[in-house]
Amino acid sequence: MNPNHLRDMLEQVRTGNVSPEQAMERLKGMPFEDLGFAKVDHHRALRKGFPEVIFGGGKTAAQIVEITQRLHESEQNVLITRLEANVAADVCAALPALQYHPHARLATLLRHPVEITGRGAILVVCAGTSDLPVAEEAAHTAELLGNRVERLHDVGVAGIHRLLAHHDLLQRASVLIVVAGMEGALPSVVGGLVSVPVIAVPTSVGYGASFGGLAALLAMLNSCAAGITVVNIDNGFGAGVAASLINRVGTT
Amino acid sequence: MNPNHLRDMLEQVRTGNVSPEQAMERLKGMPFEDLGFAKVDHHRALRKGFPEVIFGGGKTAAQIVEITQRLHESEQNVLITRLEANVAADVCAALPALQYHPHARLATLLRHPVEITGRGAILVVCAGTSDLPVAEEAAHTAELLGNRVERLHDVGVAGIHRLLAHHDLLQRASVLIVVAGMEGALPSVVGGLVSVPVIAVPTSVGYGASFGGLAALLAMLNSCAAGITVVNIDNGFGAGVAASLINRVGTT
Amino acid sequence: MNPNHLRDMLEQVRTGNVSPEQAMERLKGMPFEDLGFAKVDHHRALRKGFPEVIFGGGKTAAQIVEITQRLHESEQNVLITRLEANVAADVCAALPALQYHPHARLATLLRHPVEITGRGAILVVCAGTSDLPVAEEAAHTAELLGNRVERLHDVGVAGIHRLLAHHDLLQRASVLIVVAGMEGALPSVVGGLVSVPVIAVPTSVGYGASFGGLAALLAMLNSCAAGITVVNIDNGFGAGVAASLINRVGTT
Amino acid sequence: MNPNHLRDMLEQVRTGNVSPEQAMERLKGMPFEDLGFAKVDHHRALRKGFPEVIFGGGKTAAQIVEITQRLHESEQNVLITRLEANVAADVCAALPALQYHPHARLATLLRHPVEITGRGAILVVCAGTSDLPVAEEAAHTAELLGNRVERLHDVGVAGIHRLLAHHDLLQRASVLIVVAGMEGALPSVVGGLVSVPVIAVPTSVGYGASFGGLAALLAMLNSCAAGITVVNIDNGFGAGVAASLINRVGTT
Amino acid sequence: MNPNHLRDMLEQVRTGNVSPEQAMERLKGMPFEDLGFAKVDHHRALRKGFPEVIFGGGKTAAQIVEITQRLHESEQNVLITRLEANVAADVCAALPALQYHPHARLATLLRHPVEITGRGAILVVCAGTSDLPVAEEAAHTAELLGNRVERLHDVGVAGIHRLLAHHDLLQRASVLIVVAGMEGALPSVVGGLVSVPVIAVPTSVGYGASFGGLAALLAMLNSCAAGITVVNIDNGFGAGVAASLINRVGTT
Amino acid sequence: MNPNHLRDMLEQVRTGNVSPEQAMERLKGMPFEDLGFAKVDHHRALRKGFPEVIFGGGKTAAQIVEITQRLHESEQNVLITRLEANVAADVCAALPALQYHPHARLATLLRHPVEITGRGAILVVCAGTSDLPVAEEAAHTAELLGNRVERLHDVGVAGIHRLLAHHDLLQRASVLIVVAGMEGALPSVVGGLVSVPVIAVPTSVGYGASFGGLAALLAMLNSCAAGITVVNIDNGFGAGVAASLINRVGTT
Amino acid sequence: MNPNHLRDMLEQVRTGNVSPEQAMERLKGMPFEDLGFAKVDHHRALRKGFPEVIFGGGKTAAQIVEITQRLHESEQNVLITRLEANVAADVCAALPALQYHPHARLATLLRHPVEITGRGAILVVCAGTSDLPVAEEAAHTAELLGNRVERLHDVGVAGIHRLLAHHDLLQRASVLIVVAGMEGALPSVVGGLVSVPVIAVPTSVGYGASFGGLAALLAMLNSCAAGITVVNIDNGFGAGVAASLINRVGTT
Amino acid sequence: MNPNHLRDMLEQVRTGNVSPEQAMERLKGMPFEDLGFAKVDHHRALRKGFPEVIFGGGKTAAQIVEITQRLHESEQNVLITRLEANVAADVCAALPALQYHPHARLATLLRHPVEITGRGAILVVCAGTSDLPVAEEAAHTAELLGNRVERLHDVGVAGIHRLLAHHDLLQRASVLIVVAGMEGALPSVVGGLVSVPVIAVPTSVGYGASFGGLAALLAMLNSCAAGITVVNIDNGFGAGVAASLINRVGTT
Repeated sequence: MNPNHLRDMLEQVRTGNVSPEQAMERLKGMPFEDLGFAKVDHHRALRKGFPEVIFGGGKTAAQIVEITQRLHESEQNVLITRLEANVAADVCAALPALQYHPHARLATLLRHPVEITGRGAILVVCAGTSDLPVAEEAAHTAELLGNRVERLHDVGVAGIHRLLAHHDLLQRASVLIVVAGMEGALPSVVGGLVSVPVIAVPTSVGYGASFGGLAALLAMLNSCAAGITVVNIDNGFGAGVAASLINRVGTT
Repeated sequence: MNPNHLRDMLEQVRTGNVSPEQAMERLKGMPFEDLGFAKVDHHRALRKGFPEVIFGGGKTAAQIVEITQRLHESEQNVLITRLEANVAADVCAALPALQYHPHARLATLLRHPVEITGRGAILVVCAGTSDLPVAEEAAHTAELLGNRVERLHDVGVAGIHRLLAHHDLLQRASVLIVVAGMEGALPSVVGGLVSVPVIAVPTSVGYGASFGGLAALLAMLNSCAAGITVVNIDNGFGAGVAASLINRVGTT
Repeated sequence: MNPNHLRDMLEQVRTGNVSPEQAMERLKGMPFEDLGFAKVDHHRALRKGFPEVIFGGGKTAAQIVEITQRLHESEQNVLITRLEANVAADVCAALPALQYHPHARLATLLRHPVEITGRGAILVVCAGTSDLPVAEEAAHTAELLGNRVERLHDVGVAGIHRLLAHHDLLQRASVLIVVAGMEGALPSVVGGLVSVPVIAVPTSVGYGASFGGLAALLAMLNSCAAGITVVNIDNGFGAGVAASLINRVGTT
Repeated sequence: MNPNHLRDMLEQVRTGNVSPEQAMERLKGMPFEDLGFAKVDHHRALRKGFPEVIFGGGKTAAQIVEITQRLHESEQNVLITRLEANVAADVCAALPALQYHPHARLATLLRHPVEITGRGAILVVCAGTSDLPVAEEAAHTAELLGNRVERLHDVGVAGIHRLLAHHDLLQRASVLIVVAGMEGALPSVVGGLVSVPVIAVPTSVGYGASFGGLAALLAMLNSCAAGITVVNIDNGFGAGVAASLINRVGTT
Repeated sequence: MNPNHLRDMLEQVRTGNVSPEQAMERLKGMPFEDLGFAKVDHHRALRKGFPEVIFGGGKTAAQIVEITQRLHESEQNVLITRLEANVAADVCAALPALQYHPHARLATLLRHPVEITGRGAILVVCAGTSDLPVAEEAAHTAELLGNRVERLHDVGVAGIHRLLAHHDLLQRASVLIVVAGMEGALPSVVGGLVSVPVIAVPTSVGYGASFGGLAALLAMLNSCAAGITVVNIDNGFGAGVAASLINRVGTT
Repeated sequence: MNPNHLRDMLEQVRTGNVSPEQAMERLKGMPFEDLGFAKVDHHRALRKGFPEVIFGGGKTAAQIVEITQRLHESEQNVLITRLEANVAADVCAALPALQYHPHARLATLLRHPVEITGRGAILVVCAGTSDLPVAEEAAHTAELLGNRVERLHDVGVAGIHRLLAHHDLLQRASVLIVVAGMEGALPSVVGGLVSVPVIAVPTSVGYGASFGGLAALLAMLNSCAAGITVVNIDNGFGAGVAASLINRVGTT
Repeated sequence: MNPNHLRDMLEQVRTGNVSPEQAMERLKGMPFEDLGFAKVDHHRALRKGFPEVIFGGGKTAAQIVEITQRLHESEQNVLITRLEANVAADVCAALPALQYHPHARLATLLRHPVEITGRGAILVVCAGTSDLPVAEEAAHTAELLGNRVERLHDVGVAGIHRLLAHHDLLQRASVLIVVAGMEGALPSVVGGLVSVPVIAVPTSVGYGASFGGLAALLAMLNSCAAGITVVNIDNGFGAGVAASLINRVGTT
Repeated sequence: MNPNHLRDMLEQVRTGNVSPEQAMERLKGMPFEDLGFAKVDHHRALRKGFPEVIFGGGKTAAQIVEITQRLHESEQNVLITRLEANVAADVCAALPALQYHPHARLATLLRHPVEITGRGAILVVCAGTSDLPVAEEAAHTAELLGNRVERLHDVGVAGIHRLLAHHDLLQRASVLIVVAGMEGALPSVVGGLVSVPVIAVPTSVGYGASFGGLAALLAMLNSCAAGITVVNIDNGFGAGVAASLINRVGTT
């Protein structure tokens, strides 16, 4: 359909040869227009309740403050990820309403309270204490997106009994986020113990042949526990978003 | 707690000094035993309805037939993945009840009809016709696991209008599996159009600097669309399982 | 704008409150609809004269014949790339009108003669005889897309005089495609001799630390001759398309 | 031809047996000499209007000032790339005529105004705000080389509507430079929307499995949109030069 | 066995229908319980004499001091690895009982003297002086775990006579730890000279194509001397633990 | 010391100017001679009982038969590794005394019965049935080298209960060889359950991002269970040799 | 100098204002012409005695025969490398004068006897029998290029005594070529024993983490023995040429 | 042969049962002793005139000064490589006799004047100014080892005329060291112009897909110019040593 066709059709609407309903139908039958219209609304719907997100890594305090203030007119909550402590100090000084979570290296600015909309609890499991920042990034993200979050830390596979001792906790979660560096084996073990979705997060914790998290990433992608899915190295934020989407499947 | 302690406690149960309920509590308080007991049941529950799966890749027809027959006493449906056409011919000759799906390179042996237990529809989106075997592996797996599955094929990002024309289909799915080789860009575009979980499946389709699917895999892991999760290269089966788990979140 | 707004506006067209022209303007001002409409036409325009392309690699003769025949209703010329000689024999038997070019491993099926629309000549330069298939794939593609093509073969950098002896040829080209495997140095040298666009094509020719063309690819990406651009390993077809687009810049 | 032959011929010129014109012809017919002679002129021609370029990365302010001043006798404009803000401050203090563009991390020193010699507009498209420095390096380079440049920023593929809303802008460009980090998918989508040359520039924006831009680079090399060519990671300068050469095809 | 079955059985113990011995047997016959019980004891046994270990890399002095003090109630010796000199100064100031070994970049806090429990001597062989920190980390770890340790330093393969001159030392060791960076060839040569276990430790010593120790790692994994095993790059601690376990084989 | 010096000294021994004891001392004081002398004996001692080993991979049946027969004069047992079934058939036809183990893809030719010289049992643990050939190569090698070998198969980490159910078996081994492909997580879990040396063997089992066993190899090198050592991908033979050396520590 | 200048000068030669000798001088002083002239002669000189080389890998017998016959008019000897036995049979049938060396996988066709022009002996040292084809390719190449060649095979570093036993042989060589696969350690050891140039040749012998010879290549590049240089994996031919050039330094 | 056998034989020499000549023969027949004796002398000979070398990279000024002073008793010249300017200042303050070469980042301490022992001139060719430090490291090393060294800088392949203009210089060298970063193409071009040994040195100059010099390294290893050999990335020192060894072939 080209502009002339469209103009013709509109002319026919004007002359009464084509009814508005018929025009609607024809427009819907065209390749993209229905998309175009729907897209706007949908997008608005999608983003309702979703916080504005600022990736703080590599940005100066001044830049972060400026972006945060620019988002002020929006009604959304704000999430700043990868915010190191020294930068956070300056950002918080300029934005006193900001709440900084040093373990998770993120800050939140709440315009409205977070409403729990997820079905069940999201459990964030973490192999070692060095993986905590990524795990907490995932946990805080999921909380800000309206989920109840539980945490299980320091249950690496070399001490499998520590993990097994929390069998109940594993069983009652709706979705699991499993965070591990080094050999990245934890998601495989956890995936074999539960029957709910498991999101694996490799971290860059390690040295030498961990190659910045590559070893953990490859391990998770090759997991023998079917049904595990993986996000980028250190991507706690992405895992939190994915878990939140999963936790709301079928609710809208 | 060592065996002697256990024996003592059981002795005290016998003498009435400890009630069975107290014994239960003590056993639960011990590091692993509750796990051990629960595990069995849980595992049984988990696997109820889950088919037995045989990875057919690299196996001879004789081996596959033998394994399939060994699973005969089990009450489960059987799924054979990565079953190439020439091997399938021999397997089907030996096992006439087997249904072979050549596009998906898999076969199923149904002991009982598949019951739909998933919440909504799982949509399998596929970039190019060469990605079809992986997409169909995902689709058939999800169907066998009790999900309604829809398909959208040949909607690569270089012809974005073909994808956008199916906006409705994208919007009404509960979970999406997006399969793409080469540059692996499709999940990012799809992820920006929907507000439900997206599982990205890189395929080994491509040549040269695709390095057997590595290019697509890295692209998907680095997706700018938050909330996408990724499985191994060509792992349609794993994507089908993950999507099925997601589609049942909160149903049990 | 949602469907209701659209329906209201169409109603107003019907009642004469809004003229068709005003409706056109409003639709144009909406986020995507202008795109949607234009896209169809544009796409048609774009593809006018562009052949249908079939990637023959990994396909059976039967599959290629079937796809080619399905394209029969289209008015376009057909190009089949990566068609090995043994497969080509069977394809040509079934499609006698097909012309097979064994060096380039491609076949063409002309529905209408190719019209020269490119500005100047495209020169395909090739380092070694083993790189010929890729170079010829590029040359034939460019010819089929309406360009005059010249060829300069076997002018590797280890015998720089052979290249320099064809200085005139290099100077009179509009666009150059430079094909090389092994160390992939030729595009850098050529790029320093001409002042027109150079498209570098790494090939998988080599062994050991060539890692399937990776060495040549990296060399070309790191060329010290500014203005060189690169395509995938062995991607003669892509280079031919890119050169053709460049050779038509400003003609439409 | 060896020195004796040359001497003989010159002797024959002296004796009148060979005319200067005949000698010219013979020299031209020899393997390299015509090259040698032409090369100088050509090279001069090529470089006319081309700025002198200094790669500022890793150089001290003192070194940059010294090199810039050494180029003073040249009549050319000067372009300094990869000039970080802290170094730029010192360089600008020493060279007050220098213009620094912080977003593009480059500086220019104009000896003569830039004349527009390119055919049409070069459009620089950029996926995210973090990719801006590379995009602006490309844009400024193209401008300095005599092209009209337009910009389209922050149109990543996860919000495809933002890109599609600028369909007109995409359609009217002569050449496109598409800059993206992370999954590097934007060039594939753009390449499917236009019918002019597209130069893809991967950036090192990303973390984890982006491996310093490798993910974006591989994605772009494997693009399913035929005709896209690629430059090195973060090589905005090279993309600007390539686009400028393309925009002048057939003008000289 | 599920909780109900367990409760029933315990009830039967109470009523005398099942004797404690029978209950023991049944519990043992269940999948995991014997494990669960034994695990605790065993684990305790395993860790007896094993020091508490703190990975100091990337931790602040304050964090290390806090963790060390938290371990105070434990009766174990403490080992802090990857403790750089500048951090160590502050840690030692806070914990005067700490002994710092600058070459090995580790510190020990002894609660009880180390008892020699290993069979023979562990010999730590080191290719170059730059590999010393890793070698000393291995040596100190092995000593702290109760082994007699000998050292042979600076015997790289390019001066094979220096190694061969210590033939006696090589022959009398029970286990060898061989530490080398760069080409990592030393373990192969040593492995051919002895008939006891050899643990190879690649180090990140080198530059360029050593790729952070990858070259040495690959060399060691591909050793033509059968029976060599390898640990992670720079993992002197892990080598010390492995050698200690080997040196105690059959002693418990 | 050069030959002349040696001859002089021997002359002095003859004339009585130097006693044999003094000559011995002088020879010992020289850099290598003691080595040289000792080496021969030692080497002989080392190899006593060690089989002759032929790497069958890539060799024809004729070549293997020829090499095996050439070793006939030796008194040693012979071990042929990587002997595929089709090659083995021809080899066995020519050498009827050969015993072929198809699962392990190896054959043995015993000149004398194998004597058990290892301290305890070596336990070979195997993650999946596809890893069996490598596990059996390790097991047979260890047996041929004089060790008692136990086997525990198909205990992958996704079904951790299967592993834990064999706790006793794990506890009573002297040395463990743990074989796993895909994510290679099993050695970490096993390493946390035992207090004896663990040799990890990555296998090439897997596809896609397993990259021929690289994923498993990296996982094992980065194991969080201290004391694990690793051999090359699929190197069951090397693991068997290493385990055997460990199992004999201190016995000679 | 541009064409006009050249024409002027030739005119002046004609008129006698410039003598042929002066013209010669001026031409020599110009940027490239001396090169052009000299290049021809030089090149001829360089190639005198150098055989024509055909890379046989991946070529059919028919192609090799055709190329060889086309070279017939040349007076040079012919060397065909990478000629597998099955292809060689057909080639030899067609070219009875050809001599095939199966171990080296190469064939030679001598038009004139090879004259020894190298200074001393080139010694080819080889780690294992599987490396023999590459070693023999190097040795035959060096012989054909006019060098005396000695061989030392099967002296891998795991049996260092076998290498050391041939100390004299090592000492009397002018140049060494050291060929090794797997861990590639041999060149480092040899490099420490001699004071002449050592060319290291990595081979693709190995499996798993040898990654097709990468491990050996990296080891050789990182050799701690200063002065070792390296060629591509399996490039025995290149090593033979390099050794030959070295063996003639200063002779021309 | 064990010590007792040796003692017996020496006793028999004493008693006259074995003559010194027979003893010599027997010792020679033993695996290593002739080597052992010769090795010492040889090694001494090898090192005569060779400077002591200190790798300054990563060392503090204090460490370098200490090592240099410890070498004081040696009669050798001293060469310190990888000595950055800020460290060099402190080192020179402590060792006033030291000569620092900032471009080459190395320092020399001459105990005796360098004597020219090399046959001809070593020419160091360098692609870009950023490659100068590596080129100068090679040049200074070769000079210190007794060679006449010439330099040709800034002759990258993108301006091939600059290289060709120095044809004479290239032709008269005995050995060439060719240093290049980025695409590393220069050695291939140079290798085609000369008939003497060429040592290629890749540098880490570049960014993005140069991957720290990997691109240049791979290019050089895959050079189509036969006879080029390669050293590690940035290894100017190694190239200088290799060139020096080559330049002395046959002189001793």
